[in-house]
Amino acid sequence: MQILGIDPGTAIMGYGLIEKQGNRLIPITYASWRTPAHIPMSERLLMLYTEMKAFIEAHRPEQVAVEELFFNRNTTTAISVGQARGVVLLAAAQAGIPVYEYTPLQVKQAVVGYGKADKKQVQQMVRALLGLNEIPKPDDTADALAIAICHAHSVNLLNRMGEIK
Amino acid sequence: MQILGIDPGTAIMGYGLIEKQGNRLIPITYASWRTPAHIPMSERLLMLYTEMKAFIEAHRPEQVAVEELFFNRNTTTAISVGQARGVVLLAAAQAGIPVYEYTPLQVKQAVVGYGKADKKQVQQMVRALLGLNEIPKPDDTADALAIAICHAHSVNLLNRMGEIK
Repeated sequence: MQILGIDPGTAIMGYGLIEKQGNRLIPITYASWRTPAHIPMSERLLMLYTEMKAFIEAHRPEQVAVEELFFNRNTTTAISVGQARGVVLLAAAQAGIPVYEYTPLQVKQAVVGYGKADKKQVQQMVRALLGLNEIPKPDDTADALAIAICHAHSVNLLNRMGEIK
Repeated sequence: MQILGIDPGTAIMGYGLIEKQGNRLIPITYASWRTPAHIPMSERLLMLYTEMKAFIEAHRPEQVAVEELFFNRNTTTAISVGQARGVVLLAAAQAGIPVYEYTPLQVKQAVVGYGKADKKQVQQMVRALLGLNEIPKPDDTADALAIAICHAHSVNLLNRMGEIK
């Protein structure tokens, strides 16, 4: 099963596609899409949407995972991230791909094992779990892979719960 | 020139299309799109996108106006509105329609004449300026028309500034 993790943003949108084979997680491709700051927001969203559509078309991920955001800081950032997120959810819905949302706490717990892990610890575990030589750059890419890993673990849990019943 | 005002939201999205003929403003059509709360957010965004695309296709507005949002309250709401807004900006960009953004203060100043006008005063002026018998319902529809009116006034100003130069 292939899982696409997305870290939404209008300036940089991280993505990471991983393959879950039993308990093994294999990185397929990961990077970030960027949009220039000097063009209108609507054009930037169109660029991200076009990238996302093309990616889905090419790779056909079976599930998409995104971070569920709770900002207690900048609400202008929240609007901006919300817009990028809207485009991601739309592209997934158009392709009939279900979207799963995880809080930052859930991502940390799933990847590192405890919810108070810092960014660096999460990134180190992403590198280790996917057998990479280096931590993926930029942070948005590493975050997107962390979200995909979180969903892969959560699928395991959901499956086990299904077996118990 | 036809202007489409949008008040973005995932549960209710208000829209109002007006025609500007010199200094006259003529209401063409206005209402709200609604999405059910019990379906996934990605599906709701797809519904709104589909409505918006069909509307643009049918009416071919020349300009789109949306409110520029600054929440100092709920950031969860900001994310949600941001998502709806992302879909609106995307649909406009895909149709090659420029999007203009106005703060709530600018909308009040343009419609009522001063920035501390309350919701009811804005709605009464929307009714009067468009020659309607009643205030459009729900509030989201009235707000969308107010944003369209704000842009119509701002176009006048921009034109005058152009003449002065």
